[in-house]
Amino acid sequence: MASFKVPVGISNRHIHLSQEHIEILFGAGYTLTKMKDLSQPGQFASEETVTLIGPKGSLPGVRVLGPARKASQVELTGTDTFKIGVKPPVRDSGKLDDTPGIDVEGPNGRVHMDQGVIVAARHIHMTPQDATKYSLKDGDHVRVVVPGPRGGVLEQVLVRVNPEYALDLHVDTDEGNAFGLFNGQQLDVLLDLWV
Amino acid sequence: MASFKVPVGISNRHIHLSQEHIEILFGAGYTLTKMKDLSQPGQFASEETVTLIGPKGSLPGVRVLGPARKASQVELTGTDTFKIGVKPPVRDSGKLDDTPGIDVEGPNGRVHMDQGVIVAARHIHMTPQDATKYSLKDGDHVRVVVPGPRGGVLEQVLVRVNPEYALDLHVDTDEGNAFGLFNGQQLDVLLDLWV
Repeated sequence: MASFKVPVGISNRHIHLSQEHIEILFGAGYTLTKMKDLSQPGQFASEETVTLIGPKGSLPGVRVLGPARKASQVELTGTDTFKIGVKPPVRDSGKLDDTPGIDVEGPNGRVHMDQGVIVAARHIHMTPQDATKYSLKDGDHVRVVVPGPRGGVLEQVLVRVNPEYALDLHVDTDEGNAFGLFNGQQLDVLLDLWV
Repeated sequence: MASFKVPVGISNRHIHLSQEHIEILFGAGYTLTKMKDLSQPGQFASEETVTLIGPKGSLPGVRVLGPARKASQVELTGTDTFKIGVKPPVRDSGKLDDTPGIDVEGPNGRVHMDQGVIVAARHIHMTPQDATKYSLKDGDHVRVVVPGPRGGVLEQVLVRVNPEYALDLHVDTDEGNAFGLFNGQQLDVLLDLWV
């Protein structure tokens, strides 16, 4: 079967914040402090963390990713959702209609997000050059094969194409643990259909 | 492809205890109090919980499953292992050689287990009648297909055959969340090879 390799990036729970929310949580005129570059160009883990407060519990130390976005978005694992009692859908990043809200607490204040909590759908970032090479387009879905004692196949893996992207398969920690994955592991993406 | 249906049972972290450890943790002559029957005949969730203490943190409220076993065994999710800093392998239940230990605290005392912490390998329980019907035997591995937005294929699913068993696919909460499963969901087990 035709295939190509993609490196795995495992995301823990995190939050993207609008500039308005950054200023409520951290202070007027505040800007995020870069701690570490992420695999996607321009994206970074910031020094800042917040506490997420759900109906059944809270999650302290949740990393803020930068830069600021138009709309705040919280990405949780399924494990997190049971712990704090929220019921977000599995969604592509940025598709926040009909998603639940949450309370967010920072050192300077508290924000109630009316919506924006999701469990991120797994996806592959790639450049238009990669997409052309593999005959894929933005919005396609592919399958990824995992070897090992927790091996299997991830279906419904969304392809996201943008000149700013670097080739990367993004999964969350639940998926990483369920499939026994590690960061940087090279997995095979299958290009042929079989069902 | 030939297939049959199996209901899903999702296990959270739990501990099985030897009678010796039960008495150290809960008191001399103590026996576990049944709270709820589990899907496997004779197995139950007890009223009792313990705290697991690892090098990087602890997990309170870990459910003790009964009845008492010959050897104590702790089953964690990958998510748990990162939280408390232990590195157990993915193992079949009962195969505890070369597994890490952990400290266990109960209301009456504390036990240091020298070994016995695992991440449980997913498996299907079935009776000899089921096994004959599907041409499977104890120790075989099968594939299970999951539909939906987090769909895919679980490979390396161990078949365990015993007259005392009921038909059930056991996965942990990481796997349940990664595949978007719910308790009692009926999944297809594939009987044909394709790789």
